[in-house]
Amino acid sequence: MTDYAFLTDAVGDDRVSVDEYARDEHAGDWGTHPEDEVRPDAVVWPTTTEEVSAILAGAHERGIPVTPYAAGTGLEGNAVPAHEGISLDTTRMNEILDVRPEDLQVDVQPGVLGSAVDEAAAEHGLTFPPLPSSGDISTVGGMIATDASGMQAVKYGVVGDWVLDLEAVLADGTVISAGSEAVKSSAGYNLKDLIVGSEGTLAVVTRATLQLAGRPQQIRGGRAVFETFEDAAGAIADAIQSGVDVAKIELLGSFAAEVANEYVGTDLPDAPMVFVEFHADHGVDEEIDFCRAVFADYDPLSFEMAADEEMAELWELRREMAYALDDYREHLRPLHPGDVTVPISAFPTIVREAREVAEDRDLPMACYGHAGDGNLHYEILVDPDDEEMVARGEDAYERIVEKAIELGGTATGEHGVGLGKRQFMNREHGRDSVAVMRSIKDALDPDGILNPGKIFPDESE
Amino acid sequence: MTDYAFLTDAVGDDRVSVDEYARDEHAGDWGTHPEDEVRPDAVVWPTTTEEVSAILAGAHERGIPVTPYAAGTGLEGNAVPAHEGISLDTTRMNEILDVRPEDLQVDVQPGVLGSAVDEAAAEHGLTFPPLPSSGDISTVGGMIATDASGMQAVKYGVVGDWVLDLEAVLADGTVISAGSEAVKSSAGYNLKDLIVGSEGTLAVVTRATLQLAGRPQQIRGGRAVFETFEDAAGAIADAIQSGVDVAKIELLGSFAAEVANEYVGTDLPDAPMVFVEFHADHGVDEEIDFCRAVFADYDPLSFEMAADEEMAELWELRREMAYALDDYREHLRPLHPGDVTVPISAFPTIVREAREVAEDRDLPMACYGHAGDGNLHYEILVDPDDEEMVARGEDAYERIVEKAIELGGTATGEHGVGLGKRQFMNREHGRDSVAVMRSIKDALDPDGILNPGKIFPDESE
Repeated sequence: MTDYAFLTDAVGDDRVSVDEYARDEHAGDWGTHPEDEVRPDAVVWPTTTEEVSAILAGAHERGIPVTPYAAGTGLEGNAVPAHEGISLDTTRMNEILDVRPEDLQVDVQPGVLGSAVDEAAAEHGLTFPPLPSSGDISTVGGMIATDASGMQAVKYGVVGDWVLDLEAVLADGTVISAGSEAVKSSAGYNLKDLIVGSEGTLAVVTRATLQLAGRPQQIRGGRAVFETFEDAAGAIADAIQSGVDVAKIELLGSFAAEVANEYVGTDLPDAPMVFVEFHADHGVDEEIDFCRAVFADYDPLSFEMAADEEMAELWELRREMAYALDDYREHLRPLHPGDVTVPISAFPTIVREAREVAEDRDLPMACYGHAGDGNLHYEILVDPDDEEMVARGEDAYERIVEKAIELGGTATGEHGVGLGKRQFMNREHGRDSVAVMRSIKDALDPDGILNPGKIFPDESE
Repeated sequence: MTDYAFLTDAVGDDRVSVDEYARDEHAGDWGTHPEDEVRPDAVVWPTTTEEVSAILAGAHERGIPVTPYAAGTGLEGNAVPAHEGISLDTTRMNEILDVRPEDLQVDVQPGVLGSAVDEAAAEHGLTFPPLPSSGDISTVGGMIATDASGMQAVKYGVVGDWVLDLEAVLADGTVISAGSEAVKSSAGYNLKDLIVGSEGTLAVVTRATLQLAGRPQQIRGGRAVFETFEDAAGAIADAIQSGVDVAKIELLGSFAAEVANEYVGTDLPDAPMVFVEFHADHGVDEEIDFCRAVFADYDPLSFEMAADEEMAELWELRREMAYALDDYREHLRPLHPGDVTVPISAFPTIVREAREVAEDRDLPMACYGHAGDGNLHYEILVDPDDEEMVARGEDAYERIVEKAIELGGTATGEHGVGLGKRQFMNREHGRDSVAVMRSIKDALDPDGILNPGKIFPDESE
């Protein structure tokens, strides 16, 4: 039996737990299924960089795996222990350390909620543009770990693009810095972007300097409804290719629209819908006119734009979609929810193929996503007690991800690899590139202490 | 004597040279001084990925250093051999392989000129926005190697931000891919941004997929003249902090202005000047009005904006500055020309301190730079035959770089580390971070074949 007393030495009595409840709570995330979950032996809640360093140094000495954990909102099992050990919960490192409006920068601890960053920025007329949709329940550390992104990535880029500087603790407890508070630097290897997206396998982030932006003066948006999915996807691709300056552009497939219509009780057609939002300091109406002209080639059934509350009303179905799907599912459950991303020209193809894959296998599937990035979220619904249906679902899931890779895309656009997408890494990157990643892992964490079992495929794959 | 016959085996007779002229030509760059230059033993000009792979595999087997070389426009000795061996010249890998306007992407070989990329993009109404000022004489491979940037970084970011996917050859000849054609991916470690900026010490880039953007419909710009350097720097910082959407914002110190005025023969005051350019699809005049309002707080002596040829005329002094400085120098020469970058709030401080450092030491110094990024280029002029003056220059140079680091900035914003900035790496990143960089170098290139002697400080520093 491993002795976890060193954790108490590192953080004191109250922030270590080996009880059932805490261990259960740290055994899964939004994407894992109970039967796949692995409970850590102990959970520890550090509050300072020094405590994180002491925990890792102690674990390193003893050869105990450490899996960083935050809000547990991941979809790919990124923060779920693959080999028991310690769950290092960063949610009590939730201080906003310094806001520097004169540099459009903020320093935060990793456990701070994304929405808290945006609120702190708002006090200075600023905003944190890459905030994911889950930003009010997920942490900055989790976002950095997966290089997450949100609806606004089409205009503002992903979370990693807005990280300037990191403080992080290596597997043996060494504290390093990575990046610069200067907005550009070519001073040596880019450790910052290596740590971003490495899912806690290389280091534990203990402080991040984030770039902020001014809040736009004008926000307008609304909804366009199309007759077919192909029209909707084509209109989106065309808008991006034409350079329409859109801040959000979301697609809802007809199945998702039908479920949401039913749930909200609207009289809208059960047809593919595109939700858009525009940000500008002036001239937002010209941009909307430009978008309208591009969309017109795809004969939308409607194109409605507005501001403020009216805009929020037009977005209602997109907002309610997740709840509507939850409600619809009943005994069905989503199999491996996640996303793939392809070059924008391949977006109409991937949505068509994904639909065909599901239809051919007689599976209900909701499609939606941050379409302006070529990003498709799929939610294949299966009855977990129906083995044959689950097998069909697994087959459909693999086919959709493989198709995205064939189209020059990626197996995971914004949720990381975790456990769920490991099997696709060789196919996406090639074995030699994965070997380079592995050599970096071995160089930084030779004993494999940090979040073992993630990202890398099994040797046989 | 090393036998370089394997190079002939790799690429044939005509693209290998051991003659004096070729070796001399590959011994220096724009920033090195003749007495510091080291000649390679042999120069090789591959044209394909397979040839690069064969060259590296052969050199690796024999333990021969390979220094990738391109246009030789670097300022920090990045492509200058530190240990003889082979200069791998990529300038004959200069094909534009594929333009995909539907994805706003282009695939290029590393030796293609930046301006050629922009011209190929222009045929489709697109542009490559991060192009450095030297883009018509420098290569994409060189830009990727140093994570270079240009005047438009303030709006569009740096070169690395526009690289999506790379093919690269490792030290032992293994060909890998890094990145994705999807605009976002969180699939494993970000090898792409690790290779970008690594100055050919980790891999040789053999193909790059670059992101393009639509060409702006409206371009306007011009010049504002200020009474003091502090006013000019303050106006720039204020514009950035206020969110003025400027595409270029360049500062010329009064010394540089004086030299340029004299050279061009204008009747403008020898006063600090700010050159700006605005890009928009509509509403550019509103943005200019916004900028005028922000600048007004600093009482500019003039604020003139125009389009087309009139705009080009307003920019004349900035454009002619390099030639004016060349002309002025006579027997003086710039000592370690390069740049530092600081957070924008510290920009007025670094320009004031740099000026004081030079004045205290009675040294002529031209200051200019991409000020919107907090980027300052310094050109301390010294008489190379005056040892005491050179020593004063060295002292001033070190003090300016150290000051930038103290202000939270970086020793090199866009020219890489090469040989010139190695001594500042421990101070900027801390020894532990530099050790992590070194461990990555050792993991990818255990025999130290690729561009040895660069980036990393001597162990004693």
